[in-house]
Parts: sequence; structure tokens; C-alpha cells
Amino acid sequence: MAFSEFRPLDENSLIEYIKATPSLSSKIGHNYDGLKIKEVGDGNLNFVYIIVAPSGSFVIKQALPYMRCIGESWPMTKERAYFEAVALKQHGGLCPEHVPEVYHFDRTMSLIGMRYLEPPHIILRKGLIAGIEYPLLAEHMSEYMAKTLFCTSLLYRSTTEHKRAVVEFCGNVELCRLTEQVVFSDPYKVSEYSHWTSPYLDRDAETIREDYLLKIEVAELKSKFCERAQALIHGDLHTSSVMVTPDSTQVIDPEFAFYGPMGFDIGAFIGNLILAFFAQDGHAGQGNDRKESTRERKE
Amino acid sequence: MAFSEFRPLDENSLIEYIKATPSLSSKIGHNYDGLKIKEVGDGNLNFVYIIVAPSGSFVIKQALPYMRCIGESWPMTKERAYFEAVALKQHGGLCPEHVPEVYHFDRTMSLIGMRYLEPPHIILRKGLIAGIEYPLLAEHMSEYMAKTLFCTSLLYRSTTEHKRAVVEFCGNVELCRLTEQVVFSDPYKVSEYSHWTSPYLDRDAETIREDYLLKIEVAELKSKFCERAQALIHGDLHTSSVMVTPDSTQVIDPEFAFYGPMGFDIGAFIGNLILAFFAQDGHAGQGNDRKESTRERKE
Repeated sequence: MAFSEFRPLDENSLIEYIKATPSLSSKIGHNYDGLKIKEVGDGNLNFVYIIVAPSGSFVIKQALPYMRCIGESWPMTKERAYFEAVALKQHGGLCPEHVPEVYHFDRTMSLIGMRYLEPPHIILRKGLIAGIEYPLLAEHMSEYMAKTLFCTSLLYRSTTEHKRAVVEFCGNVELCRLTEQVVFSDPYKVSEYSHWTSPYLDRDAETIREDYLLKIEVAELKSKFCERAQALIHGDLHTSSVMVTPDSTQVIDPEFAFYGPMGFDIGAFIGNLILAFFAQDGHAGQGNDRKESTRERKE
Repeated sequence: MAFSEFRPLDENSLIEYIKATPSLSSKIGHNYDGLKIKEVGDGNLNFVYIIVAPSGSFVIKQALPYMRCIGESWPMTKERAYFEAVALKQHGGLCPEHVPEVYHFDRTMSLIGMRYLEPPHIILRKGLIAGIEYPLLAEHMSEYMAKTLFCTSLLYRSTTEHKRAVVEFCGNVELCRLTEQVVFSDPYKVSEYSHWTSPYLDRDAETIREDYLLKIEVAELKSKFCERAQALIHGDLHTSSVMVTPDSTQVIDPEFAFYGPMGFDIGAFIGNLILAFFAQDGHAGQGNDRKESTRERKE
């Protein structure tokens, strides 16, 4: 372990950290000439650094004990890095084709060293907004979900193995609570962190808040989310948790992983595809009217 | 702690144990004159002693590391006594009217000291076979299930409290596996420990084994039993887990307790009542034709 207690890394201390960590420095042949470090925000929760050297590359992801976008006002356990690393390793063991390899994990520093998904990998959401088609995406994501969900469920494992695994991931309770709030509660009531395109969607948002039958259905889904330890799910499988090229599909960021209902992953991904589909008209431009493929199939 | 390592007690060592345990000896006023010890088998898994003295009484239940009826050939963790004691205390805290008080628990010895349910308390199953009516039973059992199940569920508790409790009871995995086998698997296939009244019910047993739609339904229920951590259920709530008088209803033996679906307790109890109802004709005798109450209500 390179550092004896947690501290957020900057670009200087990062190099010091890499030099002291053989599993990382070996990835770049212990050669720091021509090393390039780029900090890339991955969202709200973490620092992410890309390290590229002539002889190799990797990514460092460090979890901070608060939501980055809000600053230190929203505390958020940095132990989530532990659950992310365990999930990456377990899902990666089951489906190495679609999960980036973990090179290094440091629990004290809440720090993961992992494969750099080099260009032309981009976030799937950006690709969908740009109107790019991914003919292998459905097959790859189906394979990822089938392997990770089936093999971590009681369809595959013994009760004893299953309960032991459930116990471990019960520790990721803070991130489960975040999902409960932002997915299953906030959208259905007036809440501080819910946003929509106002005033255009005011009436739609209100309609959802007043739909009691919908809310009963959502409450039922929420109880399944909280109670049903069916498989080790990714827990946040939207189109920004997937990096793609036309040939490669890589699932990242499983920090919300825990034993929950398979349907939460499957539904989140399909739901995001449906959102992307209905957003196509809004993203259409002269170069791509988003209608070609449909026409081709009809002809 | 009276003994530094586990050993099965007999009547002599039991007295030695009580003398060394203030929470027990105080129950009989530290007075061993006129003490009576009676060993009563409670089933297959434990030794149970009733201790009655002029100034008080209690019961000692000691779990053995094997199924008693089969001898040492079927190992069975004695840690189940720990989960039984925790469940008795938690359910007792929520519904003291219908759960016997725990006076003492010794994890090393897998030993519980608890209230002696004095005569005329009898096992409910025996009462039902004898044709006794219990006009308060439905209300008492409803209250027991409502309080213990609601208050240990997410309808009442926070996610953080719930996951912590789920983790603890995941340790009772061996008894969960026993239920999976004897309730959800063995009855639906040819299996060593399944019995029925042969040859009279051979055809019925075979019909069940060949009913594929039924087995699919049972598989669905089994997966809920294994996966849905809804509430701290008793886990074995048949009519031999309840002791009754016309005025008192006491639920005992929650060694199968874990976080599972509420329906497993509710369904087990109602199912046992239905079995008892249909068995009445077989138990009818000259003194009680089992038809009076029905007639009374019809008149």
C-alpha cells in the first residue's frame, strides 16, 4: 500500500503513488518519460485520471467521501470504491469480454487502477445522441447481463455461497439508499433534487406526481429493489455506464452494485434505450436525419 | 458463563449449570429443595428440560450439533440456538403477549433459559386433534404475525437497520437450507426422507410428483423464500410451534428464523389449520363428533 491513510490525489501525488505501486508501474514498463496524465470527470462522485505512457496505459479512479458536483455538503461513503472493485472483478471473471480488467485496488485510498478504454471508445449515450448505430450492442449487452446475472444468482450458486455474497454487498447500503431516493421516491413527489424542462414539462411532471396507481406500482417495485437479493446487479446500468466502439462494448462504474432484482439492470438499460430512441428527433441534423435505418429496413 | 466449552447437559450437570447461572437460579429463589427436572423431547433437534421448584420455574432448551432423532449422522449447527434466542427476544419485544420471555442465553452452550409455559398449556396441534376450540386463537395469532412481521419489515424500519438485520440472520443458512429441501424440494420428487401413508396415498403422492405446473409454481415460491428478505419470519410456524390454553397463545421454537417473505409464516399457519380441519373426521369419536360447532352456526 502506497499511502497509509486516505488522501485525495492530485497529478503530482498520483505519480508518486504509481511509482510506489508495482501493479501499476509495471503497466507502463516503469518508464515515466513521456507520461501523460489527464483528469476526466466521470460524473459526480469520483476523480478519474487517464495515464498514458509510450509503453502502456491505465486509468485511476478515486472515490471521494462526498458528491463531487455538490462539494463536501453531500457526504457519500468512499467505501463504494470497494464494492465497485469487487463487482468489477466478479463480473469481469464471468464476462471478461465486456468488463474492463482491474489491475489494482487500494481500499485505504478508495482507489481502483484499471484498463484504459482507449479511443475510439466513447460513452454509449454520446454515441446514441450522435446517431451512431452499434450493430453488436444488443448481443454484447445481452451476453453481459446473462452471464453476470445468471451466474451470481441461485440458478447457478448454492444457498450458502449466495447468502455469503449477499452479506458482503449489504455493506453497500448507502448507495442503495441513494437509488431508493432518486429512482423510486423523488420523481413522484416535489423534491429538492428533481429537475425537468420547465415550464414545458411542468404539466407532465405534475401528472406523474398525481398518478396514484402509478405510485402504488412504483412502491411495489421499490420493495422488490430493497428486498429481493436475486443476483449481483450492476445497479446503475444506464447508457453512460457503457463505453463502446462499433466492435467493443465495455460496462463500467458498478459502484451501486449489490444483490438485487435482475430486472433493475435489464429494465434500466432497456429504459435508457427507449429514452434514446424517442430523443432522436430532437438530435436530428442535416447530416443525419435519424430516419435512414428505419427506411432501409422498410424497403 | 458457566461452562467454558460446549457439552450436552444431563440432569446432574444441569443443576450444576443452574447454580452457576444467577439469571436462572434467581428464578427459583436460589432454592434447590423440592426441585423437579423433567426432560421433554420437543422434536428432533434439541434437549428440553422443565425445571420446577416451589418458588418458580423455567425451561432449558439446549441445541445439539445433530438431528436428535437420527443420531449423530445428520449434523446440524448448534448455532441455531443463537438465532432462536435472538428471534425470541426480538419478537418478544414486539409482541410480549404471545412470545415466552427469555431469561438467559449461553452461546457457547447453545442453551436458552426461558419461561415455562405451565399447564394447562398444550401444543396447539394436540388441542386441535382433541377437538378443542380456541376462540381467541385467530385474534392472538393475527396480532403476533402483524406485530412481528410488520415491525421487522421496511414498512417500519429504515433500509440501514434492515440490511444490518438481514446480514445477521444470513448466518442461519443451514436451517434455511433444511427448509428449502424438506418444504420446497423433497415433496415433489422421490426422496429419502419423504413419507406418506402407503399404499393408500401412493397415487396421490405420484400425482404431485408428476404435476409440472405445480412444480413450476413451487419453484417460484422457493425462489421467493431464498431471495426476498421482507421481514424476520418465524420460519416454522406450524401448529406444533404454538402452545395454547383457551386464554393464552404462545409461539415457540423460532430456530428457523431469518429474513424471508411474510407469506411463509402466514401461509404455513393457515395451511396447518386447513390440514387440521380436514383431519377432524379422522379424529372424531363418540364424545365429540366434530360437527357441533358447525351445526350451531348453521342453526
